[in-house]
Amino acid sequence: MKRNTIQLKRREERRIQAGHLWIYSNEIDTKKTPLSQFTKGEMAEVIASDGKFLGIAYLNPHSLITGRLLSRRREHFDQKQLVQRLEAALALRNRLFDKPYYRMVYGESDLLPGLIVDRFGDHLSVQLNSAGMDVLKERVLDGLRKVVNPASILLRNDSSVRKLEQLPLAIEAGFGDPPTEVEVIENDVKMTVPLRHGQKTGWFYDQRVNRAELSKYVRGKRVLDVFCYVGSFAIQCAVAGAEEVWGVDASRSALENALENGAQNGVENRFYSVLGDAFEVLRALREEGEYFDVIVVDPPAFIKRKKDHVKGLRAYQRIGELAMRLLAPDGILMAASCSMHLKRAELLDVIRSGSVKTGRHSQLLFEGMQGPDHPVHPAIPETRYLKAYLARVYKP
Amino acid sequence: MKRNTIQLKRREERRIQAGHLWIYSNEIDTKKTPLSQFTKGEMAEVIASDGKFLGIAYLNPHSLITGRLLSRRREHFDQKQLVQRLEAALALRNRLFDKPYYRMVYGESDLLPGLIVDRFGDHLSVQLNSAGMDVLKERVLDGLRKVVNPASILLRNDSSVRKLEQLPLAIEAGFGDPPTEVEVIENDVKMTVPLRHGQKTGWFYDQRVNRAELSKYVRGKRVLDVFCYVGSFAIQCAVAGAEEVWGVDASRSALENALENGAQNGVENRFYSVLGDAFEVLRALREEGEYFDVIVVDPPAFIKRKKDHVKGLRAYQRIGELAMRLLAPDGILMAASCSMHLKRAELLDVIRSGSVKTGRHSQLLFEGMQGPDHPVHPAIPETRYLKAYLARVYKP
Repeated sequence: MKRNTIQLKRREERRIQAGHLWIYSNEIDTKKTPLSQFTKGEMAEVIASDGKFLGIAYLNPHSLITGRLLSRRREHFDQKQLVQRLEAALALRNRLFDKPYYRMVYGESDLLPGLIVDRFGDHLSVQLNSAGMDVLKERVLDGLRKVVNPASILLRNDSSVRKLEQLPLAIEAGFGDPPTEVEVIENDVKMTVPLRHGQKTGWFYDQRVNRAELSKYVRGKRVLDVFCYVGSFAIQCAVAGAEEVWGVDASRSALENALENGAQNGVENRFYSVLGDAFEVLRALREEGEYFDVIVVDPPAFIKRKKDHVKGLRAYQRIGELAMRLLAPDGILMAASCSMHLKRAELLDVIRSGSVKTGRHSQLLFEGMQGPDHPVHPAIPETRYLKAYLARVYKP
Repeated sequence: MKRNTIQLKRREERRIQAGHLWIYSNEIDTKKTPLSQFTKGEMAEVIASDGKFLGIAYLNPHSLITGRLLSRRREHFDQKQLVQRLEAALALRNRLFDKPYYRMVYGESDLLPGLIVDRFGDHLSVQLNSAGMDVLKERVLDGLRKVVNPASILLRNDSSVRKLEQLPLAIEAGFGDPPTEVEVIENDVKMTVPLRHGQKTGWFYDQRVNRAELSKYVRGKRVLDVFCYVGSFAIQCAVAGAEEVWGVDASRSALENALENGAQNGVENRFYSVLGDAFEVLRALREEGEYFDVIVVDPPAFIKRKKDHVKGLRAYQRIGELAMRLLAPDGILMAASCSMHLKRAELLDVIRSGSVKTGRHSQLLFEGMQGPDHPVHPAIPETRYLKAYLARVYKP
C-alpha cells in the first residue's frame, strides 16, 4: 500500500524521538509536504528534515495537532496491530481489577491516540476524539467486539474535542442496543449511572483511587461532598461508614440519581442532597453554623481554556477557602481538579493560601492523580490531568 | 520573660507570611540585630523591617537556616504548647493507623521544626536535628513521656544534618533502656530492625504506602528488590504472594537481617539474597539471562548535595535502564528516590528516557510520595522529598 509522506522541519523530530506522539501543524515542512495534499484521517509516513523515518501517523490537516503517531515501524498499521493494542490495554485492566468496570482504553497512553473506551460490564462507551480514529471507526468496533465480546457499544461522540477536529457531534449505537443506564461497581460499591445522557462517558472512573482514599477517613464522620454529581464520592463515603453525608450539586437529575444510588446501597437515611450553586450553598451552610469533619471539593473544570486561567484559579481559591471555614476543628479536606490548565502546584497553593487566610495549619497526607486505568504516558504530560490533595486541617 | 528580637530585611517577611517557617541568615537585618548577640538555640521574637510582629523562632547564628518559627503568637512557647503539638501529632497517627508503628513527629510539618520521632510500639527513636530542638531536649523527652508513656527513648543524634548546626553526633539513651533491635509492624507484616545501629532511625516508614502499592502487583511473580536493606520491600512482596523475591544489597548485615525477616515471616524458601554492588549485580543477572516480572529500585540518596546532581542523575538513569532490560515482556517497575535534589520530573524522565533507549512503552500507574505519617507542609517544599513511580513496561 502506497503511503504519502509528511516531513518535519529541522529539529522538530525531537519531541517524537523523546517518546511523544503528537505533531503540531507548525512543525511540518509545508513547503516540501503541503497539508492540502492530505485528507482528514489519512495515514502517512513521518520523516525528519534529514529524511530519517520516524513512524506512521494519522493526520488531520484541519487540526492544530496535525499528526498523531500510531507506530514507529515501517509496516502498515493494520487490524492485527490494532487488536494487539486493544489486547495489551485489556491485559493491564485485567491485572488491575477483578471486575469489568474501568477505562479500558485511555488514548495515547495505550498507544491508541484519540480513542477512549469505558467499560461497564458487558457494555462499552466509546469516544472517537480525533479524525484519524473516526476514520478507523469500523475497525475499532470490530476490534472491540473481537477482544471484549460486549453486549453493546455506545458511541459517545458528543465530546467538545471533536469540534477541534471538525468532526460532527452525535450519540449513537455502534453495536447492539446500548441501555440508557448501566451499573457500575467501583471500590465494591454498586451504582447506577446514565450511559446515554450522563457527563462524558457517563461515569468518572478517574477518581476511583481518590474515592477509596477519602473513604478511609469518614467512619462515624459528617461528610460534605461539593459538586457531588451522581454521588460518586458521597455514596462511597456513606457505605464506608460516614454518620451522614451531604451532597451538593446544581443538577436536579444528578441529585435524583445520587438519591437512588443511596437507596440502592441502603444508606438513604444518611445521605442528604442539597440542590443549588455550590458557592451559595457553602456560604449558607456557614451562616447556619453547620460544620463537617470531612469535605471533598471536586468541581467541574473551572479552567476549560487557557484564557480562563486567572478567573478559574480564583474560583478554586474561593471554594477552597469556603470549604476550610466549614471544617470541624480537626478536619479532612480533599481538593480535586480535572482542569488540564490548573497545575498541581497551583492546587497545592489553594490549600496553602486558604490555610494562611483562615488561620489553619494544613498537612498534606496524600496526593492523588487519575487511577491506574488512566495511565500516564511518561513522554506526554497532557495524559496527566487529574489532581487531588487530601489534607488534615486544624487550628494550631 | 524578656526575649531578644531579630529583625528581617525589607520584604524578607514574605515567605514567613506565606506559611513557611524558615529564616535564612541573609534575610536578617544584621545591622539592627547582629547575630553575635544570640546564643545557639535561643528563642527570639521575629519582626519585619517595618516592626510588625511575625512570631517566635529559635535561632542558630551558626546555621544557614538561622531561624525556625515555633509560633505566630506573642506568648512564650512553653511546655504546654510543646505538649499540645505532640498531642496533635499523635492524634493524626492514631487516626491513620491501628498499630503504634509510625513516624510520630515529622518536624516542620507537625510544627515542631527539627524534631523527628519514630515510634516502634513502646520504643521511640528521636532525632534532634537543630540547635533549637537540641536546647529543648529535656522538655521534648518530658513531653514524649507524658504523651506516649514509652518504655524507652533512644536519641539518634548521629544525623549528618546536626553537623550543619554545629552539634555533636551521638547515639544515647534519652529515657529507659532502648533495645538494640525492635519489632516493626507495617502493612500487617512483622519485621525486626536494628534500632541503635540501623540507617537513620532504624526503619524507613516513609515507603509504607509505596510498599503496599507494589505488593498489589506481585502475586505469583518473580520480584527483584534492588538496594533491599533489611528487606522492607522484599519481604512484604514475598508475604503478598510473590513466587520468589531476590534482594540485592551491598551490606552483609542488612542482608542477614533481611534473611531473618524472611524466616520470621515463613517466606525464607522464596527469598534469595545477593550481596554486591547493585550495578554489577544487575549487569551480571542480565548476562546470565535472568528476568523478573516486578523490579523495585529504591537506592540510597544518589544526590546528597546539589553539586552531585549531574553525576547522581546519571546513576539513576543507569540503574533505571539496567532494571528495564531485566524486566519480563510485560513487567512492573517501581523507581523511587529519596534525594531532595532529584526533582519528580527528573525521576519521571529516568523512566521516559529508559523506555526510549530500550524500545519499551511505559505506562505510569501510580505516583507515590512519603506516607501520611510524613505529611507535607503546603508552604514548605522541603518537607516533600520522597518520590516513587510505578510503571507497567512492555514492548509494543
